[in-house]
Amino acid sequence: MFIRLGYDIQFDVPAPLAFVAQLHVHPSRTADLREPDAVHLDDDIVSTVYSDSFGNICTRFLAPAGHLRMWNSTLIEDPGLPDPIAPNAREIPTSELPNEVLRFLLSSRYCEVDLLSPIAVELFGNIRPGWERVQAIVEWVNRKVTFGYQYARPTKTALDVYTERLGVCRDFQHLAVTFCRCLNIPARYVAGYLGDIGVPPSGTPMDFSAWFEAYLDGQWWTFDARHNKPRIGRVLMATGRDAADVAFLTSFGSSTLTKFEVISDEVPPPGS
Amino acid sequence: MFIRLGYDIQFDVPAPLAFVAQLHVHPSRTADLREPDAVHLDDDIVSTVYSDSFGNICTRFLAPAGHLRMWNSTLIEDPGLPDPIAPNAREIPTSELPNEVLRFLLSSRYCEVDLLSPIAVELFGNIRPGWERVQAIVEWVNRKVTFGYQYARPTKTALDVYTERLGVCRDFQHLAVTFCRCLNIPARYVAGYLGDIGVPPSGTPMDFSAWFEAYLDGQWWTFDARHNKPRIGRVLMATGRDAADVAFLTSFGSSTLTKFEVISDEVPPPGS
Amino acid sequence: MFIRLGYDIQFDVPAPLAFVAQLHVHPSRTADLREPDAVHLDDDIVSTVYSDSFGNICTRFLAPAGHLRMWNSTLIEDPGLPDPIAPNAREIPTSELPNEVLRFLLSSRYCEVDLLSPIAVELFGNIRPGWERVQAIVEWVNRKVTFGYQYARPTKTALDVYTERLGVCRDFQHLAVTFCRCLNIPARYVAGYLGDIGVPPSGTPMDFSAWFEAYLDGQWWTFDARHNKPRIGRVLMATGRDAADVAFLTSFGSSTLTKFEVISDEVPPPGS
Amino acid sequence: MFIRLGYDIQFDVPAPLAFVAQLHVHPSRTADLREPDAVHLDDDIVSTVYSDSFGNICTRFLAPAGHLRMWNSTLIEDPGLPDPIAPNAREIPTSELPNEVLRFLLSSRYCEVDLLSPIAVELFGNIRPGWERVQAIVEWVNRKVTFGYQYARPTKTALDVYTERLGVCRDFQHLAVTFCRCLNIPARYVAGYLGDIGVPPSGTPMDFSAWFEAYLDGQWWTFDARHNKPRIGRVLMATGRDAADVAFLTSFGSSTLTKFEVISDEVPPPGS
Repeated sequence: MFIRLGYDIQFDVPAPLAFVAQLHVHPSRTADLREPDAVHLDDDIVSTVYSDSFGNICTRFLAPAGHLRMWNSTLIEDPGLPDPIAPNAREIPTSELPNEVLRFLLSSRYCEVDLLSPIAVELFGNIRPGWERVQAIVEWVNRKVTFGYQYARPTKTALDVYTERLGVCRDFQHLAVTFCRCLNIPARYVAGYLGDIGVPPSGTPMDFSAWFEAYLDGQWWTFDARHNKPRIGRVLMATGRDAADVAFLTSFGSSTLTKFEVISDEVPPPGS
Repeated sequence: MFIRLGYDIQFDVPAPLAFVAQLHVHPSRTADLREPDAVHLDDDIVSTVYSDSFGNICTRFLAPAGHLRMWNSTLIEDPGLPDPIAPNAREIPTSELPNEVLRFLLSSRYCEVDLLSPIAVELFGNIRPGWERVQAIVEWVNRKVTFGYQYARPTKTALDVYTERLGVCRDFQHLAVTFCRCLNIPARYVAGYLGDIGVPPSGTPMDFSAWFEAYLDGQWWTFDARHNKPRIGRVLMATGRDAADVAFLTSFGSSTLTKFEVISDEVPPPGS
Repeated sequence: MFIRLGYDIQFDVPAPLAFVAQLHVHPSRTADLREPDAVHLDDDIVSTVYSDSFGNICTRFLAPAGHLRMWNSTLIEDPGLPDPIAPNAREIPTSELPNEVLRFLLSSRYCEVDLLSPIAVELFGNIRPGWERVQAIVEWVNRKVTFGYQYARPTKTALDVYTERLGVCRDFQHLAVTFCRCLNIPARYVAGYLGDIGVPPSGTPMDFSAWFEAYLDGQWWTFDARHNKPRIGRVLMATGRDAADVAFLTSFGSSTLTKFEVISDEVPPPGS
Repeated sequence: MFIRLGYDIQFDVPAPLAFVAQLHVHPSRTADLREPDAVHLDDDIVSTVYSDSFGNICTRFLAPAGHLRMWNSTLIEDPGLPDPIAPNAREIPTSELPNEVLRFLLSSRYCEVDLLSPIAVELFGNIRPGWERVQAIVEWVNRKVTFGYQYARPTKTALDVYTERLGVCRDFQHLAVTFCRCLNIPARYVAGYLGDIGVPPSGTPMDFSAWFEAYLDGQWWTFDARHNKPRIGRVLMATGRDAADVAFLTSFGSSTLTKFEVISDEVPPPGS
């Protein structure tokens, strides 16, 4: 399967402003790209690319005052398979986890492991460890939290989601990630492309999406507390501890979003 | 100057428990060590050492049920100079900061940059950028927050410190770090040894200490919102975004602290 | 001046549900009414009326499952004068405040006096006590907080407004009320009718409004941190410590709002 | 049984300061008093007594700068019976609650009904309504929260108690009160004298105590989530929505507590 990926994001920038964009396809998917993947900017803007401490590809640039446009269109070949299910995947004892995985057990800005631990143990402590337990967390969050774009706010944390029971996809994942960590299951927040492939059209303008990964049996597995069903065509862009680490755009000052379009559509094979 | 460093930390561990200790002298000071620096454990405990994503040296081990002791004694040669003061150190525009410094501008568990930004701008936005501004933050926090061991709690965030105005050294640093980041000054939390060298004895049992570093003029500078005066004999152990990244001990389950002793004393030169 | 007041509020109620409505004109304005003021309900619903501990008129009833409609239309004669301004109104020392006013100095659900006191003193402690100080609070809140219906959420407190700087009219008043109390100025939350009399049409559907009152010089004075300008035609309905005390409708279970219309329009004198 | 009640509370007051003391025995127990009950102050301080909106007796006075002492000693006759148990007490439907009880269903400063409602329903929604359900709440809070004087802080709310699981008696009651209200059971916070009558001596200096009351079957019943067992010799002083309404002392400025002694001891009958 081939998926056309892209975006067209525009801002009014009142004064020169530094940006960091995490808009690249993740290095783990680079081999699948069939066209170049780059953050296009107006000609006079110089950008540099680097890897952050999580291995995400970041583009930095200084936007001059005025109109800013970032766009891209690329093509990826995808196996077209739904998220794998591994009901027998085991939890790894904390003493045996790889060093680099340990940080995904800690508290972070939007995932207050310290505040939600007794609650997670009460809710999920008696469920069989492993895949089944992560899936129970996903189902709980999916069933208890009501989705609505009007419920988005940038400062909402997992504890807020747990008390308010309202949120957007990022909020669902923050709560599920936190519950996993509370139970010593490493979990990380993921951002990426997710089109409506294989599901009824959502009817809303396309956007980037958030899901999460839990570390079981020696590898990271995809889970999605927002949708709670295997999906086809996820394209990972960035991972981190939570949405503070993973932001499509971080700028160090104010600007006004004027356009935001994302594309993630199945297309015929090139040359067909 | 020579400083004897060490600790003796003991726990009762009810069931086998994985620990990560950030109890090493930081790699930036390794060259100053005059005796080996290692986390000593009972003979039957196997530990491994690794570097975390911030470059801190971490020791991992699985403690069996029963009594656990971690101890060390080492010697470091120190220039014996007070924290440097650089009144002309400039802020670096965000677009010119090194890539690896950018993460110290973001929100983290105990440093809610997103919640305190307008407040920081109101309080410090009109102060001359650079050293003077960081120093104004340090003075504000030092003057406004009252120190007391009884005010410690593990979940206290910078916003809590800002509203409650009570805390221990970690809390002072969290608030100052957050204010710096709100103003686009990279700041990181630091843990280390700090004895009573050159100051009147504090009269309290010795402990590890927390301070912070701000990035000005191309390098990290030491600040301490708890003491707000240059000190002699800081020995850096670990740095990170906040106390969630920098914990002398992280364990993934429950245990009971039974002894906690830290040594950081000036001593005569070896062989003298 | 005559003002036509009324509302038409409808719900789908899935199961019998107890309601308390604070939809009456406040007793302090009863003498100005030129038509009866009652909460109309479908014929088969029995309601009772009582005064709560703040002196507000409340209507209680048990709504059966099905469609619920509350409506009213009444007429009030109003002096048609803008909110009075009394620049010389003094603060009353706490020791001289009337007993019944003291409770408006305390913390309440959405007004955390205990958390915001040092902040209020820093911001407003040096301003001349009295009218000028309350007005400075109103101006600060009005200037710093951005209005938007999308920023409403039922659990938002004064501290949230202070950090997020976003809100609806209730949020503006909560923050201003809290700052007043922090400075020992009694302040209470007010709900009522406020049409577009004497100002350009707001262009948004009419709603009830919130403002607040501060106690100066022996009486309660109207302030409005949302609009920050004297208005004509406020009709007080209820007062209390905050929006937890003053709710147009409180129900003890779930229901779905299907219609919400409020009228507050200047009309010709009756008989003219 | 006769109980000697009293206190000796002293402050250093840096500048004239208004106080409100809720240090009287509650009007519901006045008939049991065998000696006068008054807040004694130094001779030159004039105090006045009033009832607040909850019916508590309050004493107001303006303390001059200097040393302030409040003291009292009184005698009460008490039936000497443990808190009653009424396993068949029913919950009253919200539509049938007395008007004046309704306010004890609402959110208040330290009891965030709005934030804890779904949680309360998940924990206690399936328990048989009535006494059994309130008792289940009491047991849950008593078992889950760890008592410790070092965990006291004046700004701690029910949600904080729910996440931190640490507190003093006031915190236990706040969480239990909130859970009751979330389930539409009116609940109010109570402060009073509670000595060690009929229980092993606590070994700690005597203090006032907090418990709570739930409204079942047409009356208020005593519950105590801190002790979770019937006690003898409670003497009610004040009730309210939470500790913001019920404070032994409220002052509108700063002062330093220098002595705090409370007496609540069984004594022989007078004249014996």
